[in-house]
Amino acid sequence: MVAERLNGINMESLNETIDLVRDNPDFAKFTFIARNQWITGTHNRATIQEFYQAGQKDLTRTEPLVFNEDEPPILLGKNKGANPVEFVLVGLSGCLTTSLVSQAAIKGIELKTVSSELEGNLDVRGFLGLSKEVRNGFESINVKFKIISDAPDEKIQELVDSAKQYSPVYDIITNKVPVSVNFERYSK
Amino acid sequence: MVAERLNGINMESLNETIDLVRDNPDFAKFTFIARNQWITGTHNRATIQEFYQAGQKDLTRTEPLVFNEDEPPILLGKNKGANPVEFVLVGLSGCLTTSLVSQAAIKGIELKTVSSELEGNLDVRGFLGLSKEVRNGFESINVKFKIISDAPDEKIQELVDSAKQYSPVYDIITNKVPVSVNFERYSK
Repeated sequence: MVAERLNGINMESLNETIDLVRDNPDFAKFTFIARNQWITGTHNRATIQEFYQAGQKDLTRTEPLVFNEDEPPILLGKNKGANPVEFVLVGLSGCLTTSLVSQAAIKGIELKTVSSELEGNLDVRGFLGLSKEVRNGFESINVKFKIISDAPDEKIQELVDSAKQYSPVYDIITNKVPVSVNFERYSK
Repeated sequence: MVAERLNGINMESLNETIDLVRDNPDFAKFTFIARNQWITGTHNRATIQEFYQAGQKDLTRTEPLVFNEDEPPILLGKNKGANPVEFVLVGLSGCLTTSLVSQAAIKGIELKTVSSELEGNLDVRGFLGLSKEVRNGFESINVKFKIISDAPDEKIQELVDSAKQYSPVYDIITNKVPVSVNFERYSK
């Protein structure tokens, strides 16, 4: 018999969700949304609130989540927020963690603590237009998990492998996503 | 003569940075860092503070920036924060905006307002292990800018193209970044 709740994951809800989506593949289709407003210079502000599942708006978040983005002074900003590439690391850290914890719950492995440190290496000569050989984005990212669990090493290694295998953000970063960018003018 | 400050970008500082990096390519090498601590279930918390430039720690941020990540109830969470894929959209929105604004400053184009809306389409059958054909990450992302500026349409189109061309996060998402994931056990 499967524990009702493991690692804080409600196994009954997880199994219900899996059954629901198996029977209704449209329920698996989500559209997540971010809005951004430029403030000045390298400072802008993003908001997250609603999203869509199978075309239906989810309104469970009653307040917008607001994120200031800016650069540090060495990159011409005023530290009004984390910078955009750091937000990518935030997303990757959270996604690998949730993926690892969920996989542990599915496999019946109890975790006591999970923490991680991520390093993203970036050469700004790309962004500054000083080199065409240097890419603009991260050249590499290193993730190091620290885990406390009674499970044996080989089970923890399996979990880390599963975390990569199922993580949406790991897929987004290690593979290619098509991005279309359009604009419209509007009157003052 | 170039304006001292355009779109909030200090052109003198920008040119100084470009000259500095051209003469000392090591100064272009940054390592950005995120730390993450699992709370319970799908809730975890990331922090951003220091980073390294040419091996030197930057300490201009005197406080850590803290980001709660969680899923909405339909994805087994409690809305304690935006979810990891939404953080990727936040980063992309900020990066394209900063890239666009900086390129406008370099080209001498004044912008009055810049806002954007991003949609990321994701099918959770990948994450739920229900389909091997469905990828885990975003299948596509659509970005729509709204811009007020006196510049002609073709100049705005050039700016949007430049924003894509120079944006680190656009590169990270539309191309592949190698990510290594390791773990260590530690004692209780």
